[in-house]
Amino acid sequence: MKGILLFGHGARNSDWARPFGQIRQLIMAADETALVEMGFLELMRPTFIEGIDTLVGQGATEIVVVPIFIAGGGHVNKDLPPLAADAMARHAGLAIRLAQPVGEAPSVLAAMADYALQVMPAE
Amino acid sequence: MKGILLFGHGARNSDWARPFGQIRQLIMAADETALVEMGFLELMRPTFIEGIDTLVGQGATEIVVVPIFIAGGGHVNKDLPPLAADAMARHAGLAIRLAQPVGEAPSVLAAMADYALQVMPAE
Repeated sequence: MKGILLFGHGARNSDWARPFGQIRQLIMAADETALVEMGFLELMRPTFIEGIDTLVGQGATEIVVVPIFIAGGGHVNKDLPPLAADAMARHAGLAIRLAQPVGEAPSVLAAMADYALQVMPAE
Repeated sequence: MKGILLFGHGARNSDWARPFGQIRQLIMAADETALVEMGFLELMRPTFIEGIDTLVGQGATEIVVVPIFIAGGGHVNKDLPPLAADAMARHAGLAIRLAQPVGEAPSVLAAMADYALQVMPAE
């Protein structure tokens, strides 16, 4: 079974995770069979490995990790690959693929630009 | 004249700013009259105030600051308002409005969810 892990940085304030919950709901509404969890790098739970463990417990054998980051920086390029390697070492037979950060997807960039135009002051 | 400041965190690697440049290009392509600059909190230039100064130099009198952040956390809720206050103190007559972070806009959340579905492993 396929699974999606929404990978985020984490923050001290629990409200910060709200968009992650909304993205998860939207994915599940679009595909009832999708297994979707979130996993945070720091400051919040579930952690990355807790999110992976939950997906595996639900039967996921192939997981795509979607970085919910504006761009690829140290967290995505340096911190994430070892986390994925550890998860694959922990779960024999599990395949993990790392997607590009959402902020680099053309459709997301277009939505961000549209949003900025919507909130621009009227002449 | 109206202006948009794309406000970002900043990172050590200059590649990190690429989505900001792409959002800026998309906005300018959609509205040729739009004044759009970026401004970073740390680690990168232009800084927030440098971005504001450029917009004011181009004739902006009303600026909306669009936080290019996944969610509102300390950087958006605590660091940004004093930067805006300083900018208004520096430029008499300048109006600044702070928009919600892009990651909390429903259209952007929908685009992120769609992207995650696109990269989900096929059955």
